[in-house]
Amino acid sequence: MIYDFTYQNPTKIHFGKTALEHLPEELNNFGSNILLVYGKNSIKATGLYDKIMGMLMATGKKVTELAGINSNPRYSQVMEGCRLVRENNIDLILAVGGGSVVDCSKGIAASAYYDGDAWKHYWEEQGLIENKVVPVASVLTMTGTASEMNTGSVITNEDKKLKLGRVFPFPDLCPKFSILNPEFTYTVPKIQMVSGIADIFSHLMEQYFGGDDDCTSDYLLEGVMLSLINSSRKAIVDPHDYEARSNIMWCATMGLNKILALSKMQDWEVHMIEHQLGAYTDCPHGIGLAIISPAYYRYIYKCGLPKFVRFAKNIWKVDANGKTDEQIALEGIASLESFFRELGIPAMLREVGATEEMLPLIAKSTIPGGGYKKMEADDILVVLKNCF
Amino acid sequence: MIYDFTYQNPTKIHFGKTALEHLPEELNNFGSNILLVYGKNSIKATGLYDKIMGMLMATGKKVTELAGINSNPRYSQVMEGCRLVRENNIDLILAVGGGSVVDCSKGIAASAYYDGDAWKHYWEEQGLIENKVVPVASVLTMTGTASEMNTGSVITNEDKKLKLGRVFPFPDLCPKFSILNPEFTYTVPKIQMVSGIADIFSHLMEQYFGGDDDCTSDYLLEGVMLSLINSSRKAIVDPHDYEARSNIMWCATMGLNKILALSKMQDWEVHMIEHQLGAYTDCPHGIGLAIISPAYYRYIYKCGLPKFVRFAKNIWKVDANGKTDEQIALEGIASLESFFRELGIPAMLREVGATEEMLPLIAKSTIPGGGYKKMEADDILVVLKNCF
Repeated sequence: MIYDFTYQNPTKIHFGKTALEHLPEELNNFGSNILLVYGKNSIKATGLYDKIMGMLMATGKKVTELAGINSNPRYSQVMEGCRLVRENNIDLILAVGGGSVVDCSKGIAASAYYDGDAWKHYWEEQGLIENKVVPVASVLTMTGTASEMNTGSVITNEDKKLKLGRVFPFPDLCPKFSILNPEFTYTVPKIQMVSGIADIFSHLMEQYFGGDDDCTSDYLLEGVMLSLINSSRKAIVDPHDYEARSNIMWCATMGLNKILALSKMQDWEVHMIEHQLGAYTDCPHGIGLAIISPAYYRYIYKCGLPKFVRFAKNIWKVDANGKTDEQIALEGIASLESFFRELGIPAMLREVGATEEMLPLIAKSTIPGGGYKKMEADDILVVLKNCF
Repeated sequence: MIYDFTYQNPTKIHFGKTALEHLPEELNNFGSNILLVYGKNSIKATGLYDKIMGMLMATGKKVTELAGINSNPRYSQVMEGCRLVRENNIDLILAVGGGSVVDCSKGIAASAYYDGDAWKHYWEEQGLIENKVVPVASVLTMTGTASEMNTGSVITNEDKKLKLGRVFPFPDLCPKFSILNPEFTYTVPKIQMVSGIADIFSHLMEQYFGGDDDCTSDYLLEGVMLSLINSSRKAIVDPHDYEARSNIMWCATMGLNKILALSKMQDWEVHMIEHQLGAYTDCPHGIGLAIISPAYYRYIYKCGLPKFVRFAKNIWKVDANGKTDEQIALEGIASLESFFRELGIPAMLREVGATEEMLPLIAKSTIPGGGYKKMEADDILVVLKNCF
């Protein structure tokens, strides 16, 4: 089945070693009140904060700051940003950091002028945008989520113990521009780099594992998977391999700017489970995904067997000779698991802060996102136990 | 080498069986004066003309028509369109047809308010746009050029015997929206369908054959090549195979919306040679490309050997066992040639209207576009003779 679609993605990407030089010309397209959103101290340590501040000053901007955004950005931080936007009549939200900072900024952009309970409207009820939206742009320092070229905003409500993703309608919440310099990702700690890689790989699989039909998007997804595997193996040996880090960065952006998933069924169950794992444990998003994925795919692979066989053959070059389709599919999933081990990612949930008591709570609170198989809380609990 | 880039492509794509239903909502975003550009009689024969006219009337538009656009659109037609735009104060140019109609419409959009010799400025000298540009949109009935999602405009100047391509800066000349219903391509004669397929395949190769480095774009291009080969083989058996025609249509759009060529060296020599073949013979663009490609690649493959070996292995599954790299590469090019034969494309230039006397004229007037090897007129003449 080839589905009808509408696609528009106007984000302007500046990519490469000279990308930041485009910031002043881009800033000229916006008013003078800027909300600068960033994380903890890393952009100050690397000098990026000073560089960007210099450009903001040189272009005559008045800067308000929202610092300290968490790796799982909190709804309370979104609310704080909304207040700053309204009080300072902000013209552009400039996110400097990784996906969490960009996601948080998009949440602020959508919610600042929403008159009511934004959490309920935008995240719980996935409501339409009818209020004014503040433009967002980004300078990326960590790669994985593709938030720099999509409308996603995953926010954790700490009071409700809920981590919910919202994909806002394109193109309103697409960043106006995003600046991607692979060198800015060099200083990310290794665990964050591999977490990003696992996040990208998961996005690719979740768009791939749907439908057994023959769709151009599947071939594109396979291409990005192969490139990502190849470059990840180089980057873990030499994190300053510019070519490898560039490819990983671009695999991330292409991996979830939604242009590779057009016309096809998808399966986002792994992300749904991980969001609740994140709400309970605060473990790095990609690490959670990498632990859950093999367990989940082993649980459901028979429902989408031809695609899992194709995955094994095309991505992991599994030799099909004399094997049943089930054996081939399982070898593919085992290869996926070995790849995550090769990256140094822990294998079990107990290693990343989950406790046995949490498992039923995570299972029960997970939002269904399955494709090949409708997952109930009991199914999810089995998956979680299998990788606990 | 990974090159820096800036990319922005805001074209909105409506794809699928219901795509045309979006036309009225899109028309509401533009003023009332529409220039409807189309080819010969096919859109009247299929009823598409009446459907679109009905929508234009229902949304209260005043329609001016420019009909009869050639498969190699002429500069005189661009000039005629420019006059109509100015006289009727056109708000939107709506191209209904294949790449030629869309290319011609973009030529009009850029040139209508240019004060001077537009041919010289935009095509010969590749000058900047400083005048007002008229918005363009498209309803596609033939697939291949990707003109529906890029800024290309290939125009033939019949007086000067020159066919020149212009890639206008993104995003100004990107169509505002494009409507892609694979069913609209069903009625295209088989020779046009396979010409389109060859055009797509050529675009993919011309972006692929540059650099021997390891770039995510190469993997994406391989994905689209594999999908295109697979779906083309189905479409020549059953031209009403919706899945196959959908994939071909999307391979075309992705194949030259430029998102698959970012960061990398390219080689557009085959297109450059074919443009001059087209200026002399008016042969279908894709057919010309398919004839020239194997001859050209056999002439230059040693300069980019690792990439041609990769092409043979990854695309054509050439068994490398016990063979030299040169043998592997040549087997890949032979497989490419067999694929074009399988599609029913003629093998030699003499079959498509070229004469021996034309060859030196074509060679001499070709604009250099080479990547791996700088091509002089003498080199091009050898290539042409090898496929004459």
